Amino acid sequence: MNTYTFDEINIGHKEDFTVTVTEADRDRFREITGDINPLHNDPKFAKSKGHDKCVAFGMLSASYLSTLAGVYLPGKNSLIQKTEVNFRKPVYVGDTLTISGEVTDKSETFNVIEVKVLITNQDGVKVVKGKMEIAVVE
Amino acid sequence: MNTYTFDEINIGHKEDFTVTVTEADRDRFREITGDINPLHNDPKFAKSKGHDKCVAFGMLSASYLSTLAGVYLPGKNSLIQKTEVNFRKPVYVGDTLTISGEVTDKSETFNVIEVKVLITNQDGVKVVKGKMEIAVVE
Repeated sequence: MNTYTFDEINIGHKEDFTVTVTEADRDRFREITGDINPLHNDPKFAKSKGHDKCVAFGMLSASYLSTLAGVYLPGKNSLIQKTEVNFRKPVYVGDTLTISGEVTDKSETFNVIEVKVLITNQDGVKVVKGKMEIAVVE
Repeated sequence: MNTYTFDEINIGHKEDFTVTVTEADRDRFREITGDINPLHNDPKFAKSKGHDKCVAFGMLSASYLSTLAGVYLPGKNSLIQKTEVNFRKPVYVGDTLTISGEVTDKSETFNVIEVKVLITNQDGVKVVKGKMEIAVVE
């Protein structure tokens, strides 16, 4: 886990990590949230909506922003203030995602960093684009 | 689970539901995301950051937006396009949250509804404010 202070982080600083979305993750996300929408576990229903297989929860992909901030950028001193997430292409169970963040701005007054987020799948397809504001609490 | 069509949803339509954040939910969220930040499971560390107890993951609270869209508004025909989440006050394990959504706009061209989101805790404190754009896929 990174332990960057506000001063150690510069505009342009990048971090990334990789995760594979498993069936177990999908099931645990449903248990946590109670989101029983069949798009995520009924292949027939998913097909009726134009998908070859079940779509992973969009907000499951968004959950990895928690890790990006809390473990990587800035890591231990992280306190997320704001997130903005655009779902551009579907994520499927079995996909391997790369979650990347790049610091685009720093607010000295509040010790807040602004991070541009991009999630791509194993084929390089941009599945999620986003933005975070993260306080660095030392 | 609701099955609203685009035409059945009017501006001002409201839906809400209630959920209690358990330790098991917190632990499952960590397993899914790999976010091992000690703010969420080390009371001593949480205290050093000014909290009486461990803070629940912000993105765990954000996850309930999945349920708001996929089960309630519009329910079965939901496809989330965009979310925006502001974390205003900390959420703790044991808190009972009310997640509410209200339709603020409709885009006829793309069958998209815009939903204002508010999450309050058992004391009526606004812990999360947000916004979603959700396609109604019939």
